[in-house]
Amino acid sequence: LNINENFLRLEKSYLFSETGKRAREYKAAHPDEKVISLGIGDVTRPLVPAVIAAMHKAVDEMADSDTFRGYPPEYGYDFLRQAIADNDYQGRGINISADEIFVSDGAKSDCGNILDIFGPSNTIAVCDPVYPVYVDTNIMAGRTGDDFIYLPCTGENGFLPDIPDEKADIIYLCFPNNPTGTAAPVSYLSKWVDYANANGSVILFDAAYEAFIRQGGIPHSIYEISGADKCAIEFRSFSKTAGFTGVRCGYTVIPKTLICHGYELSQLWARRQATKFNGVSYITQRAAEAVYSDEGRAQVKAVIDYYLGNAALIKKGLTDAGIAAYGADNSPYVWFRVPSGFDSWGYFDELLSHYQIVGTPGSGFGKSGEGYFRLTGFGSRDDVIQAVERLTK
Amino acid sequence: LNINENFLRLEKSYLFSETGKRAREYKAAHPDEKVISLGIGDVTRPLVPAVIAAMHKAVDEMADSDTFRGYPPEYGYDFLRQAIADNDYQGRGINISADEIFVSDGAKSDCGNILDIFGPSNTIAVCDPVYPVYVDTNIMAGRTGDDFIYLPCTGENGFLPDIPDEKADIIYLCFPNNPTGTAAPVSYLSKWVDYANANGSVILFDAAYEAFIRQGGIPHSIYEISGADKCAIEFRSFSKTAGFTGVRCGYTVIPKTLICHGYELSQLWARRQATKFNGVSYITQRAAEAVYSDEGRAQVKAVIDYYLGNAALIKKGLTDAGIAAYGADNSPYVWFRVPSGFDSWGYFDELLSHYQIVGTPGSGFGKSGEGYFRLTGFGSRDDVIQAVERLTK
Repeated sequence: LNINENFLRLEKSYLFSETGKRAREYKAAHPDEKVISLGIGDVTRPLVPAVIAAMHKAVDEMADSDTFRGYPPEYGYDFLRQAIADNDYQGRGINISADEIFVSDGAKSDCGNILDIFGPSNTIAVCDPVYPVYVDTNIMAGRTGDDFIYLPCTGENGFLPDIPDEKADIIYLCFPNNPTGTAAPVSYLSKWVDYANANGSVILFDAAYEAFIRQGGIPHSIYEISGADKCAIEFRSFSKTAGFTGVRCGYTVIPKTLICHGYELSQLWARRQATKFNGVSYITQRAAEAVYSDEGRAQVKAVIDYYLGNAALIKKGLTDAGIAAYGADNSPYVWFRVPSGFDSWGYFDELLSHYQIVGTPGSGFGKSGEGYFRLTGFGSRDDVIQAVERLTK
Repeated sequence: LNINENFLRLEKSYLFSETGKRAREYKAAHPDEKVISLGIGDVTRPLVPAVIAAMHKAVDEMADSDTFRGYPPEYGYDFLRQAIADNDYQGRGINISADEIFVSDGAKSDCGNILDIFGPSNTIAVCDPVYPVYVDTNIMAGRTGDDFIYLPCTGENGFLPDIPDEKADIIYLCFPNNPTGTAAPVSYLSKWVDYANANGSVILFDAAYEAFIRQGGIPHSIYEISGADKCAIEFRSFSKTAGFTGVRCGYTVIPKTLICHGYELSQLWARRQATKFNGVSYITQRAAEAVYSDEGRAQVKAVIDYYLGNAALIKKGLTDAGIAAYGADNSPYVWFRVPSGFDSWGYFDELLSHYQIVGTPGSGFGKSGEGYFRLTGFGSRDDVIQAVERLTK
């Protein structure tokens, strides 16, 4: 018996355990001070009434033999796949149909599991800083240092990395971006789609923060870009859209026109899911469907407006304090360069000890994140207002 | 860009699409006849009241910012891991603790995903007939014909396959078995545990039908066998135990004492799950917890008794009709040799056209299933009684 030795090459992620540890230690030493966390990457507002009502109704259906549902369809119930196709795509003039949508327990699972359908000898392009799951899942699949192309995202390139000269087979893009909060315009994404189609590459487009887009001209889906249906897989989630981090539902879109060496990638993913997955809870799928009702839509938008309002206050507070800050316009994340004289972790300690604010050091997301810092709008409004007062005093 | 070409070696599974197609065609040609399905592998009884109450309560908690829950812990909430450890293990005198339990969205996902932690050059032993997921997930991972050892399960060996002479690194065992309905006694499982410990192999023990065990002396867990904590991973599910096929919850047990080349397999699985999975819905986990309450336990037992009662009636009907039938005592499945003159598919057609009963041909589960047939107790009591009347007339 042998183990997958690639696991031994994974670095242990210390980021959030280390920030948590330092915050706990500070609180223990200063029990009378109120420490505010702006480091949180999880939603905090409750599920909206339309979703709650749909879940109660679905639970009751499961209590009655006439309406009970057993195994769900492996790719999602038709009612949900159709609601997604109608609302997130067709309604925006994007030609994606229900049978190109695969419902799952979340974008994180899909982002990792999608590698099952690709062969071993592919090169991988990832942004730096980056969501660590993209890199770690590739290491688990056997890829080593030489297989990765890191794309630095810095203030100099507006956090929109340059298209590389070398060929990457699989390109991970996440817009609006975690952690930088940057949204990508059509002109930028078009360059990637053209690059992918010229090189026979696939773009794995993580659109988990799509619902935070408020500016016009920013695509909500990669499929708004001409040619993307031939080179892109899109991951979406109800986690940040509708506060489903604790409910677990997302979906992956693979257009039938996305073909590699004569094989439809959607067919490979369909087989992967039918073999290694058994569908999503009926109750959860009814909850997701309710996000698209008139009430659900309005209620969910109000929650996102709340988080966006928090992010805008944080950004203004930083700006007023003389710090140039990015993100927040189409994202819950605020990203900024730490004041000179600090590195990311040094500023973490400064913010904690002088302002009693917990954030996340940019270096925790990758080498090019050094010297940057992330704050998030997922907390309560009162906490955000108080934190901003401290920063601007 | 290249795809995972192992997918091209997968055989398309025709079994249930073919049985469904023949049943539909028969019904279309005979609209006045009542066709009864005893082929169903999914539960049909509604969720029990204790589970429904727990879900409503959890949904309400998600509606209030004071009790809302975001991302669940990746390995399951402590309340559920502890309830599992207490009830399914410690309470039965088995030394498994909460931190050796990993809650997931179901045993099918875990059975497939577990291969992530093993290296490429392992040989695989599987029963024949078998649940196709075990084989297909290994083919996806790159294993070919030579890497498999098939263990024939036939009437001659009482559907308990002989221990092989050659070495298998990974051994899939499922008891009570799908499709044969066979339960395995301690003496039999001990042979496998001894073999695994002697060869440094790992047993993947699928105990999805554990709750159907009623006979004394039949282990409910592989860890009732001395030495199993050093060689076995156990998969459990609430799907058949508590009717959760549409709710999605299961768990995997990896004892800390299960070590391969110095590495704890539980650590590898913990990293796999933390990287490629994001936990199970809070509502679902509260539902699973309710299965262990006094009411939940009694209610769930009554449902399983109902299915077992169906299976017993089917078995008796077959016996009365002169057919030797197996399973049903500790399983929802009834397995029998088809009358001479038929193969499995021939008997499927005979049963459909002469008795208007739909079942599942044993050959669909593997070569050694040829000449056998599966009926299940998951339907309604009225249907079962009517089917048995037809068989015995």
